Amino acid sequence: MRYPLSALGQKMLRLTGVREIMRDIETATAAPSARPWINLSAGNPLVVPELERLWHGIARRLPSAEFGEVIGRYGSSRGYGPFLDTLAADLNVRYGWNISPRNLLVTPGSQTLFFILINLFAGAMSDGSRRRVLLPMSPEYTGYEGVTLDADTLASTRPAVETDGAHTFRYRIDPHDLVIGEDVGALLISRPGNPTGMVIPDAALEQLAGRAAQAQVPLIVDSAYGLPYPALNRVAMRPLFDSHVVHCMSFSKAGLPGARIGVAVADEAVIEAALSFLSNMNIHAPRLGQALVAQAIHDGSLDAVCRTVVGPLYAAKAQRLQALLREHLDGLPWRLHSTDGGLFGWLWLEDLPIDDLTLYARAKAAHVFVVPGSFFFVGLRGQWRHARECLRVSLTASDADLDEGVRRLAGVIRAAYDETPQAQVA
Amino acid sequence: MRYPLSALGQKMLRLTGVREIMRDIETATAAPSARPWINLSAGNPLVVPELERLWHGIARRLPSAEFGEVIGRYGSSRGYGPFLDTLAADLNVRYGWNISPRNLLVTPGSQTLFFILINLFAGAMSDGSRRRVLLPMSPEYTGYEGVTLDADTLASTRPAVETDGAHTFRYRIDPHDLVIGEDVGALLISRPGNPTGMVIPDAALEQLAGRAAQAQVPLIVDSAYGLPYPALNRVAMRPLFDSHVVHCMSFSKAGLPGARIGVAVADEAVIEAALSFLSNMNIHAPRLGQALVAQAIHDGSLDAVCRTVVGPLYAAKAQRLQALLREHLDGLPWRLHSTDGGLFGWLWLEDLPIDDLTLYARAKAAHVFVVPGSFFFVGLRGQWRHARECLRVSLTASDADLDEGVRRLAGVIRAAYDETPQAQVA
Repeated sequence: MRYPLSALGQKMLRLTGVREIMRDIETATAAPSARPWINLSAGNPLVVPELERLWHGIARRLPSAEFGEVIGRYGSSRGYGPFLDTLAADLNVRYGWNISPRNLLVTPGSQTLFFILINLFAGAMSDGSRRRVLLPMSPEYTGYEGVTLDADTLASTRPAVETDGAHTFRYRIDPHDLVIGEDVGALLISRPGNPTGMVIPDAALEQLAGRAAQAQVPLIVDSAYGLPYPALNRVAMRPLFDSHVVHCMSFSKAGLPGARIGVAVADEAVIEAALSFLSNMNIHAPRLGQALVAQAIHDGSLDAVCRTVVGPLYAAKAQRLQALLREHLDGLPWRLHSTDGGLFGWLWLEDLPIDDLTLYARAKAAHVFVVPGSFFFVGLRGQWRHARECLRVSLTASDADLDEGVRRLAGVIRAAYDETPQAQVA
Repeated sequence: MRYPLSALGQKMLRLTGVREIMRDIETATAAPSARPWINLSAGNPLVVPELERLWHGIARRLPSAEFGEVIGRYGSSRGYGPFLDTLAADLNVRYGWNISPRNLLVTPGSQTLFFILINLFAGAMSDGSRRRVLLPMSPEYTGYEGVTLDADTLASTRPAVETDGAHTFRYRIDPHDLVIGEDVGALLISRPGNPTGMVIPDAALEQLAGRAAQAQVPLIVDSAYGLPYPALNRVAMRPLFDSHVVHCMSFSKAGLPGARIGVAVADEAVIEAALSFLSNMNIHAPRLGQALVAQAIHDGSLDAVCRTVVGPLYAAKAQRLQALLREHLDGLPWRLHSTDGGLFGWLWLEDLPIDDLTLYARAKAAHVFVVPGSFFFVGLRGQWRHARECLRVSLTASDADLDEGVRRLAGVIRAAYDETPQAQVA
């Protein structure tokens, strides 16, 4: 770079782990290749024809006046009025909440929402101290690291690892054990989790909210895969809202990633602060997608497609992944995290003789992409061998790609287990 | 606020001058009132039926496959491929530039683009020093202040004021006189200017770029009202691109404010840095608007509507404003900045006995809104009486509102001039 960059500029030059992998994949797959690549690293959600028809149908029927309103006018920084009204009413009816549009804020995608929330509550304070965002769960979504202004803004805690069946496991956090220091400005958890697919149980989430209230910090819940949309939960769960919870929604997995719609549901004071931030930084979010979603919530069509098509589709993928692993990794000490919901399978390869980055490179050599697990243990201090034994496998590939991809991956894994561990060689 | 906010959070709570006025207007006009309000403070651009038809027509004809592509998929952080290709080719043909999509970046609106650019090149540096963005012109767009992470990031310089006719004036900056200190990280100027309507001449812009090159900093040119779209210039001008210039475009005044499309045209290294920033912060900009613009650039329809309809519409408003001022302020020492282009008239009331904020309040009492001028002198050190004698009048009102609004405003101004200056009373 020919110009000196600010400290923030230099920080922002670094792509966080997963986005670095995305770039590696983009570069690799752009080159001509005789052997087709199989991408199990996610990126795009499944293309669901029912969702495409839903959104295009509504767009086609949008009256000229409303099209002109949402495309041709600046709007309120809070969001498009009919969308806010419809969403507030929908959430109140579903969950018995008592929210109004004053509890809502629409952002140009939920990544921007996390940029705003994390930087409102953490980073440099006016008195010279610093505050962090505490992730009660680790592994967690690496994109949170991408939106921090300084390295070291995220801290996380190591969960307990529970094994039940031969080939499943589950992380567990006990909110009572969580240490929320004076330097913590907010708690943040994804639910269903990325990358784990774990849905933290209702009771544990309520306990977390209680601990947040006690510590006088907000609990931010990233519900990008959760209820009510896109409803990629495969266990029962209940969204939580109270005065200390910021419930964050996305419509990307409901077929609108290109429209960029993130929503915060929160206490009015939190929304007001985030609204000013957004107003200064972005003016407001794009409006056309909001108009489409307002219609599809209002007439119930989004709910119907999510429940009857999208949810079952991912549930079938999760089962398929499990069956494939059982078939191809027979006899090896593999475990899949219980796939309570979301877009991913989270694979733990206990005592794997090579680390996850090496495994990534070897899988790439076999023309299959997965995401190395260690990237997801953001903010975790100390060494944890487990963090180098995991992989994230996306549920968004076609059945054929999932079958062939897991077959190739399993070959690489089996070969790795067959090696003498390096430690014993030395 | 119940939670402690970060230093940045506290800074972002403050709305910059103009957005504070916008909120005041929103509050005032929301209350029931027997007397209609007239809003000459801008906000929304003119609604141009030809633009509405253009965009809705293209949206209606968008093939299902492309609609699915831009709504239902994540895309490249750089922008939507066909839009990048079309825009690069268009700019090359028009101006003889030699750019490729690698010189382009699409952001969710140009406000976000300025957030990225300003914070890449200014603010806290890794070595503990600080850098500023220098505005060669003052008055300048207040929104630049909204995107800074710290107060005091912007610095500006006082232009010369040239009067020619009885009721016109013009700011002039001499790039050779500009002092670009070691603490300057970038230069930034809007062209046509907000609020002045001034188009800095081609030769002066080239000299500015030369000074930027010499100082090894980028010159950022905000072309939200300029060429090639929306082409709200009323004097001849030529966009400038060279390796030290970041040319910033917006499609908001071409009828798409709700779609949020900002574009940077720059050196590949600058684009790469801004791309990483955007990727971490926003993933990418919304894509549907980009698809619409790609079509309208490709078939020439956007160019045609801008040149034959939108440009002439604002030109007629500018002439109307001047005629109204001549009629209603007859005999008073008023001057309008030469309206080279853009969305605004910039009125200087020489030796006005009251300041601009008082005038704003009195105009509000007469149910007409304008924007007080002093807000636009961001980053200017020292007192300058001129800064308190100016007002920004929007060209986006209906003719009837413009007529009645200027009539009311003139009444307030005339009454003010009739007062004994406070200084003489004391």
